[in-house]
Amino acid sequence: MAERIFGHIPNVFEGDVFENRIALSHSKVHRPTQAGISGSQKEGADSIVLSGGYEDDQDLGDVIVYTGHGGRDPITKKQVTHQFLSDKNLALAINCQNGLPVRVIRGANHKSKFSPEFGYRYEGLYKVVKYWRKTGRSGFNVWLFRLEKITVDQALTYQVSEDSPIYSKTTRTLTAQQRLNRDYSLTLKIKEIYNFHCQVCNTKIFTNAGFYAEAAHIKPLGEPHNGPDTLDNILCLCPNHHVMLDFGGFTIDDDYSLIGLEGKLYVKPEHRINSEFIRYHREHFTFNLPHASQPSS
Amino acid sequence: MAERIFGHIPNVFEGDVFENRIALSHSKVHRPTQAGISGSQKEGADSIVLSGGYEDDQDLGDVIVYTGHGGRDPITKKQVTHQFLSDKNLALAINCQNGLPVRVIRGANHKSKFSPEFGYRYEGLYKVVKYWRKTGRSGFNVWLFRLEKITVDQALTYQVSEDSPIYSKTTRTLTAQQRLNRDYSLTLKIKEIYNFHCQVCNTKIFTNAGFYAEAAHIKPLGEPHNGPDTLDNILCLCPNHHVMLDFGGFTIDDDYSLIGLEGKLYVKPEHRINSEFIRYHREHFTFNLPHASQPSS
Repeated sequence: MAERIFGHIPNVFEGDVFENRIALSHSKVHRPTQAGISGSQKEGADSIVLSGGYEDDQDLGDVIVYTGHGGRDPITKKQVTHQFLSDKNLALAINCQNGLPVRVIRGANHKSKFSPEFGYRYEGLYKVVKYWRKTGRSGFNVWLFRLEKITVDQALTYQVSEDSPIYSKTTRTLTAQQRLNRDYSLTLKIKEIYNFHCQVCNTKIFTNAGFYAEAAHIKPLGEPHNGPDTLDNILCLCPNHHVMLDFGGFTIDDDYSLIGLEGKLYVKPEHRINSEFIRYHREHFTFNLPHASQPSS
Repeated sequence: MAERIFGHIPNVFEGDVFENRIALSHSKVHRPTQAGISGSQKEGADSIVLSGGYEDDQDLGDVIVYTGHGGRDPITKKQVTHQFLSDKNLALAINCQNGLPVRVIRGANHKSKFSPEFGYRYEGLYKVVKYWRKTGRSGFNVWLFRLEKITVDQALTYQVSEDSPIYSKTTRTLTAQQRLNRDYSLTLKIKEIYNFHCQVCNTKIFTNAGFYAEAAHIKPLGEPHNGPDTLDNILCLCPNHHVMLDFGGFTIDDDYSLIGLEGKLYVKPEHRINSEFIRYHREHFTFNLPHASQPSS
């Protein structure tokens, strides 16, 4: 198999339309002729095709909530079993963790006002900014991915170099989430309450500019989660436990016991946490953890 | 003192020119009438004025290497003592760690082809993407800050809300560094060599998508450091130690002993690290650590 290219394909431009999946495959924009996701769970996903329409998809143009792969009856297209965070779905999660861009193609049969009238249109690069699971309308678990369009300016990041076709930034990509307005005074406040100690491990990171901690939202900001930017939805965490919270490495029980890690979340009396938000986190960001709830919405 | 506003001032636009420092102060774009940096070491810096010209400044337009405050003789303007990462300089470091934007104003007496012909011109928002120290041309330590222009699209992040004038993203801002092309295959390679274990603490972060680690450059990519994107300049670190490496919480001796932390960097035989790069890190990113080298360039 040829090397996987992340980013634009040379000489293919946003808006280019391909007659069918074979033409699309020849262009290298999306190589598989059947699968909706091109990728591997080691490297990540390089492209996806929106077609048909999973019942939980949402297409807002520059923001797409994309349903993962698997569990549908090939004939009726109905969801008949759970989806898992494995294979192609896991590939998209790797994009999220590593900040890799994914090419998006909309097909004419994709149910959205942004779909082309015929064929398959290359829509440019998107970032996978969040992934979570929920019980789909079918009653089965599905994995969802929030994709956000990479603007022209940002896309410079993803230029293909002469030396290597696989180029990208690799630091943790919270860029799109960062686009959401957050109240900086709350960030200062939560760090003050805990004096920069992580509520999970009590670590206090030292830098040349003093102590360092991160303010982490339990129920994420923005569509479709719409968690509030309020202290009862914010934790003071070290970067390690922030990554683990965002990527479901652990979750929190109603009594603040940690699920997936030993111990208990340290919560000061003056810091009230809304149990609705930790329940939301349990239901949407973790799986296979002992005692983790099953998703309910 | 009025609340510090991060981001644009309502009704002031990029390119607006103010006759003098008093007019600039009244506009709220830069409130101090003397100081070049407006800010506090707790909240961060909200604005800076480029004027006169420190000998180590570089003004490339959208990228500015800005010399910190202090140590100059008030009459001759020559650097006569060391600068420290405290007070206003620390404020700029806080911007870097928290992703806060800083308003930039160029004065007519600033030595650059981007300077206005008269008065003080508001140049929009910049991010502080890196800070480090070096021995300036004077022979004394100075602290330098790499500023990068925030594009119109990114600036949406920093819109002032009706509820609170202090709005911004707060997650760790590696965005501008992320803009640098990096070879994703090296990221995969370094994680493979260490099987996702941190070379400092041996931690292996678990997420719902498998193990997680970060590839960290010892000598940073991009101007003015121009560290190479090669394996001998990359470490496999957990997010905590990545933050600490980038922000000088520790550094590394030639024999891989850690300076500022207990223990020794774990280095596998097949991973050769170039000692030039760890020396560069020692000299530019740390201070006040026992046994840390003094800067030499």
